[in-house]
Amino acid sequence: MLTIRPIGHVKNGINGPADFKDQVSEIVIDEALQDGLFRLERSDRIIVIFVFDRNIGNDFKLRLHPRGDRSIPEVGVFASRSPFRPNPIGVTEVELLSVKGNVLTVKGLDAFDGTPVLDIKPAEAWDGR
Amino acid sequence: MLTIRPIGHVKNGINGPADFKDQVSEIVIDEALQDGLFRLERSDRIIVIFVFDRNIGNDFKLRLHPRGDRSIPEVGVFASRSPFRPNPIGVTEVELLSVKGNVLTVKGLDAFDGTPVLDIKPAEAWDGR
Repeated sequence: MLTIRPIGHVKNGINGPADFKDQVSEIVIDEALQDGLFRLERSDRIIVIFVFDRNIGNDFKLRLHPRGDRSIPEVGVFASRSPFRPNPIGVTEVELLSVKGNVLTVKGLDAFDGTPVLDIKPAEAWDGR
Repeated sequence: MLTIRPIGHVKNGINGPADFKDQVSEIVIDEALQDGLFRLERSDRIIVIFVFDRNIGNDFKLRLHPRGDRSIPEVGVFASRSPFRPNPIGVTEVELLSVKGNVLTVKGLDAFDGTPVLDIKPAEAWDGR
């Protein structure tokens, strides 16, 4: 229905469970798109849209126990942040620490090393003034 | 690289410029996925991921004047909320007014009538307790 392509990738060396809250990651944007980052450093917080690429092709369930914890009551997949979803797309608001060339440094991104990034948006629209 | 399919569509009768801030819209979820909404009504705010479908195939620019207003200095596309993007995906946090069957009623969704919706997530993860 719509084919999407990554604009860059996550670089953080993390390949398994981690506490992502204080984790610092780099997002390396394709050099051809670097100019799209112009003035992004004005934003303290940005929204990162990415692909749960390790789950592509995996089944999802319409109801699940959050974090796989069976002591937590079931919720629907759309009432959860589970990475197993009809469209395996993650959205996380993170702190933007720096922009250098085509590399963003961010804090709080809950994505593994190599994760394809689809888009970056400022958390709050900035009107340029 | 990744093919995504809508889980539902926006219904609000809006086909042109509007003040979306207080706009009430319905999101009609595919009936086959309705069970994925289980317990979503516990969330006051949800994140809606959708496709800027009227812009598919349109060119984007790496730098642009926000809202096309040339009095506003240029910013990069990733420093803007422009709908003309490398991947035409929109993300908006909205107020969830109700869930009835497969129909969500929301306030503040900046999307036109018929917009394909890709995902719904709670704005804050709920642990089921």
